[in-house]
Amino acid sequence: MSPDTVPEPSSDAKPEGASPRRRGRRRSVGAETGSPPINQQQFFKPQNHMAPLTPLSDDHIAEIHNQSLRILSELGIEVDSANARAAYKDAGADVDEASHIVRLDEALVMQLVASAPASFTLTPTNPDRALTIGGNNIYFGLVSGAPNVHCALKGRRTGNFEDYKNLIKLGQYFNAIHFFGNQALAPNDLAVNTRHLDTVLVNLTLSDKIFLTMSIGEVRVSDAAQMLAIARGISLDELSQSPSCITNININSPRKFDTEMAAAAMYLARLGQAVVVTPFTLMGAMTPVTMAAALAQQNAEALMGICLTQIVNPGAPVVYGGFTSNVDLKTGAPAFGTPENTLANMAGGQLARHYNLPYRTSACSASNCVDAQGIWETQMALWGAVTGHGNLIYHAAGWQEGGLVASYEKLIVDIEMLQAMHRILTPLSFSEADFGFDAQRQTPAGGHFFGADHTLERYKTAFYSPILSDWSNNEAWEKQGGLRADERATAIWQQALEDYQPPSMPADRVEALEAFVSKRKEEIGTSEI
Amino acid sequence: MSPDTVPEPSSDAKPEGASPRRRGRRRSVGAETGSPPINQQQFFKPQNHMAPLTPLSDDHIAEIHNQSLRILSELGIEVDSANARAAYKDAGADVDEASHIVRLDEALVMQLVASAPASFTLTPTNPDRALTIGGNNIYFGLVSGAPNVHCALKGRRTGNFEDYKNLIKLGQYFNAIHFFGNQALAPNDLAVNTRHLDTVLVNLTLSDKIFLTMSIGEVRVSDAAQMLAIARGISLDELSQSPSCITNININSPRKFDTEMAAAAMYLARLGQAVVVTPFTLMGAMTPVTMAAALAQQNAEALMGICLTQIVNPGAPVVYGGFTSNVDLKTGAPAFGTPENTLANMAGGQLARHYNLPYRTSACSASNCVDAQGIWETQMALWGAVTGHGNLIYHAAGWQEGGLVASYEKLIVDIEMLQAMHRILTPLSFSEADFGFDAQRQTPAGGHFFGADHTLERYKTAFYSPILSDWSNNEAWEKQGGLRADERATAIWQQALEDYQPPSMPADRVEALEAFVSKRKEEIGTSEI
Repeated sequence: MSPDTVPEPSSDAKPEGASPRRRGRRRSVGAETGSPPINQQQFFKPQNHMAPLTPLSDDHIAEIHNQSLRILSELGIEVDSANARAAYKDAGADVDEASHIVRLDEALVMQLVASAPASFTLTPTNPDRALTIGGNNIYFGLVSGAPNVHCALKGRRTGNFEDYKNLIKLGQYFNAIHFFGNQALAPNDLAVNTRHLDTVLVNLTLSDKIFLTMSIGEVRVSDAAQMLAIARGISLDELSQSPSCITNININSPRKFDTEMAAAAMYLARLGQAVVVTPFTLMGAMTPVTMAAALAQQNAEALMGICLTQIVNPGAPVVYGGFTSNVDLKTGAPAFGTPENTLANMAGGQLARHYNLPYRTSACSASNCVDAQGIWETQMALWGAVTGHGNLIYHAAGWQEGGLVASYEKLIVDIEMLQAMHRILTPLSFSEADFGFDAQRQTPAGGHFFGADHTLERYKTAFYSPILSDWSNNEAWEKQGGLRADERATAIWQQALEDYQPPSMPADRVEALEAFVSKRKEEIGTSEI
Repeated sequence: MSPDTVPEPSSDAKPEGASPRRRGRRRSVGAETGSPPINQQQFFKPQNHMAPLTPLSDDHIAEIHNQSLRILSELGIEVDSANARAAYKDAGADVDEASHIVRLDEALVMQLVASAPASFTLTPTNPDRALTIGGNNIYFGLVSGAPNVHCALKGRRTGNFEDYKNLIKLGQYFNAIHFFGNQALAPNDLAVNTRHLDTVLVNLTLSDKIFLTMSIGEVRVSDAAQMLAIARGISLDELSQSPSCITNININSPRKFDTEMAAAAMYLARLGQAVVVTPFTLMGAMTPVTMAAALAQQNAEALMGICLTQIVNPGAPVVYGGFTSNVDLKTGAPAFGTPENTLANMAGGQLARHYNLPYRTSACSASNCVDAQGIWETQMALWGAVTGHGNLIYHAAGWQEGGLVASYEKLIVDIEMLQAMHRILTPLSFSEADFGFDAQRQTPAGGHFFGADHTLERYKTAFYSPILSDWSNNEAWEKQGGLRADERATAIWQQALEDYQPPSMPADRVEALEAFVSKRKEEIGTSEI
């Protein structure tokens, strides 16, 4: 699609009487001369009060636990970091320095896991956006880690800083997003060894929500922690009492724990910041093809990382991560939103709760575009994640191509679906007034309720109000161009970028952050970290 | 899309080494010279063993029950059929012959509902396709009642007999489909007063699965019952002991029970055949805008119809139906797959189980095409229906435009999603062999499992095998034409129609059915029924 054919926003996004859109011009939200802002939901922190779906029986959980401890005690995990091996050894693990294999027995694992908190609070620059991770809290995160980016206007291209900033703006703008994963996309036009400084600065100045930091080595997380302290106007000591940082480490499945990830985890755990431990368990490639084996391996590898955080700082906030899906056995390509992925999202929650830990899961898809496949995959994974009682649901907006692309249009579709999920999670009300008996009494058999007082008093908020859905009849829809939802989404992210407002931050803190970035860039130079 | 650009089947549907497709030529499935059949799942009857999701507390259920009985006892239902009013009166209801209002009190309702069975079995011409409706059984039905039809090759057109036959063939072909709703689409090119004979004949000769019959008056259901008896080679008496027929009646919400629906329900109930009672409760139009009021009204109206079946034949099979969704309050257009629809699908199951009745719900969407919206709406409604423990999930394949269109491409997308849902409902296995510890022992840290014996022994059936998903990487996908899932679906329904095989039926029964249809057409003539 060329810029000339960019569709106008759908009628749903543009109430009657709206003046024509005026593009490319900054204006205040709701200013008299502009079009009204997107009618999105308010920012709120949903609670998941419905019982989780549980594909595992209690016996299954016990068997997976036992099998995972057999993996940890008999096969062990290859730990490349000498520091991490030393920490495990001090804690009582069996460490083979020749092979780097670390073995943990059940008693040690359970003792270490017991010190991890069931929930904890992360506070970003805006305390209203603080997230308490654990229990029934459920938060949705933006796509992260994509090497490429796609929008209908410019097509598919490599990740870059301009699009990075746009994605942060969109994640800040849309209230359905509670947090950012590590790097919404890879800004490949920035120097590898200092781009973490640029992206953290953007995250802190263009957004006030929680974001994850890169887990490659101690330097990057240390820089991020110092910048978060500056941005909040607190010391590192104070940060350790009121954590802001969170990172995600992968175990390189099967059974390999690399040096950089271990270093990042140990640094943040010592500082009392949060670590998510997510084994990268694609069934058929990194694990056997069976769900039983994959879950046992996921559990073993997650416990391995969780234990490290508790060794270096008992009580440090840590999250049980699950990312079990399957590959296409014909090609080796990863698949997401499959039945296996959906069930694993549910089962992972059962395992996390077995250890009384918060749970991170994901809503991913593999399709190459924002088509039926992309959406059924995302929905399947999302329902698995929500009914699995994920506390942090990663990649919930904008993820495409198995994570190879951050998509602007997919992001808008996902926001619509997340808003709907928020509404599903909102408890229903059954007051006397809600039952509306008088309205029923006053409406004759075969009549309708369009004009009832009960309706008129409630119609503005009675139902979920979509930002993208088009419920026109076929004739009206054809007349408006017969656009698919992904085509209509283009105008919505454009409007969101226009309407976006940066959060406020005291000027001295912005200056201090910029000074920190300059100083660190000088120190790092162009050498690889 | 013109016929010249019909895509070839996706690589997923066509294993390597397949010979080129040969279109327009009938051949045996799997014949050496043809392309292999679609790699669909086997026919099976899934069980829903996961706990249902329950947005209603026990208190909410009690309040909805009480409120619905307040509607039935204070406001009553307008019953247009004199026969039905007489039946209600004989049973002890308060009947006002001037206004046609029938009021039922709680004791009477509960006494009548108590005689309805918690589950029952319907047997079609093929006993292997018999369905036991109730408990944890979950069955998926094809789109029904659409006045129009759409495919990518011919576009949108009015419903007609040719497409009707195609949809029956597709519903027969795809094993994910357990039953047909009433008339997959309206064959508008057939005479209104005899088309039920043509469609029942098609259903009986092109399929051997359960199908619903039209609920407009006694004549149509009587004809269908007689044809089912002929097709099974049994008498009407025997049919009454081993039911085959099922119909769906709507209550015209609010609170109006029309003559034709009542007549059909009474006839079938007397004959021991099954009736589904589904109030047509679109919030904001036919009910107040609140979920509380809508569920109370749905419950009142469903109980009203259920009671009628039990009055005329205590113990007659009957199903509690829910179809609560919302309208767009700006335009009055119905919406489906909304948060409200999803929650109502779950809540309806709680109400049905409260009365120990089987539950019918739906997986509908409102979008005008097979786009992201169409799929997120369908998925939302489907997850509501499945987690609500629907026993019969209507409109689960091919429904589009709020039911105004039966779509060939949507049907294929839906089949893929239903197959995935079947797989999600299939219990996981946790045997010693499933845990694959030897494979893990033999695979080094950082290695992979592609070539492991454990993988090779299981790879063909380890994961759900899709018929439509494309997991190619972006380059390969682009090279194959960069087709969306809805575009790829065209070739799949074409192949399914080619591969379709009619079920066998003894020649004398086919002749008897054709003779019955001829005789009845003569008797009915062209007069309106």
